[in-house]
Amino acid sequence: MNNQLLGNSSHGLIFVISAPAGTGKTTLVNMLTHEFPAVVRSVSCTTRQPRPSEHEGKDYLFLSKEAFEAKIEQGDFLEHAQVFGDYYGTSQAFVKKQQALGKHVVLVIDTQGALQLQKQLKEAIFIFISPPSLVELKERLHKRKTENPQSIEERLAWARRELEMVSHYDYHIINDHLETAYTVLKSIFIAEEHKVRRK
Amino acid sequence: MNNQLLGNSSHGLIFVISAPAGTGKTTLVNMLTHEFPAVVRSVSCTTRQPRPSEHEGKDYLFLSKEAFEAKIEQGDFLEHAQVFGDYYGTSQAFVKKQQALGKHVVLVIDTQGALQLQKQLKEAIFIFISPPSLVELKERLHKRKTENPQSIEERLAWARRELEMVSHYDYHIINDHLETAYTVLKSIFIAEEHKVRRK
Repeated sequence: MNNQLLGNSSHGLIFVISAPAGTGKTTLVNMLTHEFPAVVRSVSCTTRQPRPSEHEGKDYLFLSKEAFEAKIEQGDFLEHAQVFGDYYGTSQAFVKKQQALGKHVVLVIDTQGALQLQKQLKEAIFIFISPPSLVELKERLHKRKTENPQSIEERLAWARRELEMVSHYDYHIINDHLETAYTVLKSIFIAEEHKVRRK
Repeated sequence: MNNQLLGNSSHGLIFVISAPAGTGKTTLVNMLTHEFPAVVRSVSCTTRQPRPSEHEGKDYLFLSKEAFEAKIEQGDFLEHAQVFGDYYGTSQAFVKKQQALGKHVVLVIDTQGALQLQKQLKEAIFIFISPPSLVELKERLHKRKTENPQSIEERLAWARRELEMVSHYDYHIINDHLETAYTVLKSIFIAEEHKVRRK
């Protein structure tokens, strides 16, 4: 059934998902890749330190600053950005390889990276996920307990700016109920696969 | 749950669905309006005689030829056509009223009517549903060469016309499995409601 719904394309689509931290984007994307083998998440490169739960090659490709900058020089990144002093970037080679296999590739990146991609990947589908409110986002960040109060304040300020970016995206999902938000996300993928694309 | 998925818009969308006879479009639209109260099917006007099973206001608005032609003069129709001497048309007033109530309006019309609407309703979403026979035909054309050249030519010409029509639509659903086709149709509605519309 799921393979009939998604994964009939000979060439995969690119979905760019942006959302402030604590919006549930990681959970939502995991649900999607779990249900649909035709959907893969792009593994980003970063120079930041891995969190205890993170694994090399699964969550990120962890690079030294020198190695990352060498890749920038070589034009290896579809987009890259510096956030809180650390580099994040999307490898072009990874995305193209998956697409050629008929996989839909999900890039989870911030709005800065997404805007860079809009210039380069005009055919990509841009999805913005919002928390129900900034108040609730604050609660979620506190519950996660991976950040100190100053970091939370910085992230909230950042989230406020991010929300102003919705108008640059194709779709807007408000995650006030996980199952509903997931159904909307899934629907966007299924609908986009059935879109008539004029060559 | 369903009301969270569809029907949050203050202003409804217009969906135009075209499909050859026997494609299951009536069943699919009925499933949709049954599951989502926010989706209504447009009731067309016609000058033909009601069939015993048909009800005024539910299946059609039955008008005299004079009344229909007066409405044409007044510009009351979004589209209209004459089939075997009878008029069929979509009332603009009906659609606008439903939209203002936040309802998504489904217009089930043939490709001739749909093409008329594309000029007038640039914001409408156009969906083409194909019968599985088109898929089977395409497969046959690819794999087999056992039919006589004239038959192959006729089939190719028909397939070409169908595919040319599909290119005028936004989405293409192949109904080779009812439940799958319904999930795709539903997904298109949910996705479109979550589209960021630049004013």
